[in-house]
Amino acid sequence: MSFPAAAPPTRLLMGPGPSQIHSQVLAALAAPTVGHLDPVFLRIMDEVQAMLRQVFQTENAMTMAVSGTGSAGMETCVVNLVEPGDRVLCCVNGVFGGRMAEVAERVGAEVTRIERPFGEVFSADEIQEAVQRVRPKVTGIVHAETSTGAWQPLEEIAGVVHDAGSLLLVDCVTSLAGVPVEVDRLGIDAAYSGTQKCLSCPPGLAPVTFGPRALEAMDRRTAKVASWYLDIGLLRNYWGSNRAYHHTAPINMNYALHEALRLVLQEGLDARFARHMLHHRALKAGLAAMGIQYSGSPDHCLPMLNSVLIPEGADDAAVRGQLLNQFGIEIGGGLGPMKGKVWRIGLMGETAQSSNVLLFLAALQQCLASQGVALPMDSPTAAASAVYLES
Amino acid sequence: MSFPAAAPPTRLLMGPGPSQIHSQVLAALAAPTVGHLDPVFLRIMDEVQAMLRQVFQTENAMTMAVSGTGSAGMETCVVNLVEPGDRVLCCVNGVFGGRMAEVAERVGAEVTRIERPFGEVFSADEIQEAVQRVRPKVTGIVHAETSTGAWQPLEEIAGVVHDAGSLLLVDCVTSLAGVPVEVDRLGIDAAYSGTQKCLSCPPGLAPVTFGPRALEAMDRRTAKVASWYLDIGLLRNYWGSNRAYHHTAPINMNYALHEALRLVLQEGLDARFARHMLHHRALKAGLAAMGIQYSGSPDHCLPMLNSVLIPEGADDAAVRGQLLNQFGIEIGGGLGPMKGKVWRIGLMGETAQSSNVLLFLAALQQCLASQGVALPMDSPTAAASAVYLES
Repeated sequence: MSFPAAAPPTRLLMGPGPSQIHSQVLAALAAPTVGHLDPVFLRIMDEVQAMLRQVFQTENAMTMAVSGTGSAGMETCVVNLVEPGDRVLCCVNGVFGGRMAEVAERVGAEVTRIERPFGEVFSADEIQEAVQRVRPKVTGIVHAETSTGAWQPLEEIAGVVHDAGSLLLVDCVTSLAGVPVEVDRLGIDAAYSGTQKCLSCPPGLAPVTFGPRALEAMDRRTAKVASWYLDIGLLRNYWGSNRAYHHTAPINMNYALHEALRLVLQEGLDARFARHMLHHRALKAGLAAMGIQYSGSPDHCLPMLNSVLIPEGADDAAVRGQLLNQFGIEIGGGLGPMKGKVWRIGLMGETAQSSNVLLFLAALQQCLASQGVALPMDSPTAAASAVYLES
Repeated sequence: MSFPAAAPPTRLLMGPGPSQIHSQVLAALAAPTVGHLDPVFLRIMDEVQAMLRQVFQTENAMTMAVSGTGSAGMETCVVNLVEPGDRVLCCVNGVFGGRMAEVAERVGAEVTRIERPFGEVFSADEIQEAVQRVRPKVTGIVHAETSTGAWQPLEEIAGVVHDAGSLLLVDCVTSLAGVPVEVDRLGIDAAYSGTQKCLSCPPGLAPVTFGPRALEAMDRRTAKVASWYLDIGLLRNYWGSNRAYHHTAPINMNYALHEALRLVLQEGLDARFARHMLHHRALKAGLAAMGIQYSGSPDHCLPMLNSVLIPEGADDAAVRGQLLNQFGIEIGGGLGPMKGKVWRIGLMGETAQSSNVLLFLAALQQCLASQGVALPMDSPTAAASAVYLES
């Protein structure tokens, strides 16, 4: 028994990831597969590493793409930095901070959580108090909480973490290539991301970077890394100059990431960050015209992940279903305790375009109106257009 | 600093994987990305599972594609079946049996290895003796040793393993869709594979299947699975009917696997196995005409992975380099203790075509002759053609 060809439709991906993919990236994905030790592929790996360093704004030699999705990137960082019995501090203000704690517990860490309500961020003072009290080997924090849209300031965090003798591990899954991720300037010791957010590449690889303090901590390990597949000690020999066979890398996914990184660097990081911010402002103005409010702390809203309160009278699933079926637009529902309370509207990478913002606002207005949700009379597309005209 | 587009060349992949990819699979890979919870993608996941069950020849509900490469499939099976302190028996007759032992040790198993020289296989009696002595929770064995080309008979293995109260875990990375992998008939409890071998899909996913005894063992666990990313208890909720978000699956890789599985089932498993065997016989005849011998036990040579002794006077790297640079043909060198002693010639999936066999034989003859290696005068292509004409 076989099935018809899958023939997936074209969607406008405005959820929490995956984001829209540039046609050049899809074309790169379909280039002829070569061997994983082919000199051509080794060159592509080198170039992927070099371009990832630029996007992470780091000189870290150990910067590479793990052969799994963003969650595998999280697990790679945690299992390599943490040994059984190590103390780990996790800052939890959303689903992904909680996941990091869970991953650390599974490798036998003694985990302390500090918590903020979903949508809020941590102050450097709070973290300082906690690291001084716990004295963790590793402190983990989420830069861009995909579950809440909260944008965690990192400016003073590394200092207080290092002063307590701890390593700083940062989840950059949604932030990388969308807002500045300044690994070296901020003193981040390890970070991970995913390809399907602001890099606008299909999901399947996890960029990671490890700085000198992180590598020293790994060199001092006494226990083997619990995961063979994600052991940086082994991966260094494959991605490094030895090119020792470890596993067969996802060849075509690396082609796609190579092309996606090329597009990021051709645009330029600063221009890309400004583009995300512009379309965020336009979207926000359009949503405000419909009386739709953001769910999180207004001073810390991510531009590329807009978490908004579902307006009164609107049926979560019905609106998202109509957007998908009538307009081909995907937005995200709430995760965990936010389920049924918020929508997550993504403006990541290729998705952040004025045509997408205007279409989405018009489509949402129509969906809400057709379902009898009472709305203010202001035009959301006119409000968004006003932002574009001013810029 | 950016780089030129990667533009990988077209190769003829006749190594130990990746194998040649059908143009429909590459086209599927480049289809528009949809969301990982899109109804269209959920249908594709269902169909991938249904087709994988047919290829594994199993009714196992828990049959799916892990979001990593074949080695992640190995790790998934081991970390879910094994708890710290469990006894595990690993049958080691090549690199991948050794890897399974290493993965089990890292999750805290008490591992016993039984060994056969590289290229040989285990008898049921040997395994019976070992399982009765060790009484392991899990017995791991490699069906198709990619490092040696040895084809392990499995007919009586499950019986002796189950009689000792042990679960049978089988590495089918290179065998799946190339030779029969009869999970249910043989009583295999868990198996894993990779996409880039006889399924002829790019690397990046790992098909796995778990039978009822394996699931019961997981249900009885007292320790959490060390890997969050590979925890079958969590993955069952995503691939099962709950569709609970776990991680963002590699969407486009699943498109490619869907299309590759469609092609496998359209051809039919028996026809596909016969095709692998035919081209193996033709290749073997052609190699024999040049005096090139297989490295392993002659009764247990895999059709799709031909490990041959490098002929006297031939320089390993020079011949492989000439094949790649002059003819675009990739073959594999030896792994581990076989390095410099053997070549590994793959005839996996799409690669197993008479045009590939004839071109490879002609090209190898020219490379050896140009490097002054003394060869018999028989024509390798004529010898291979004779096999085709008889068939």
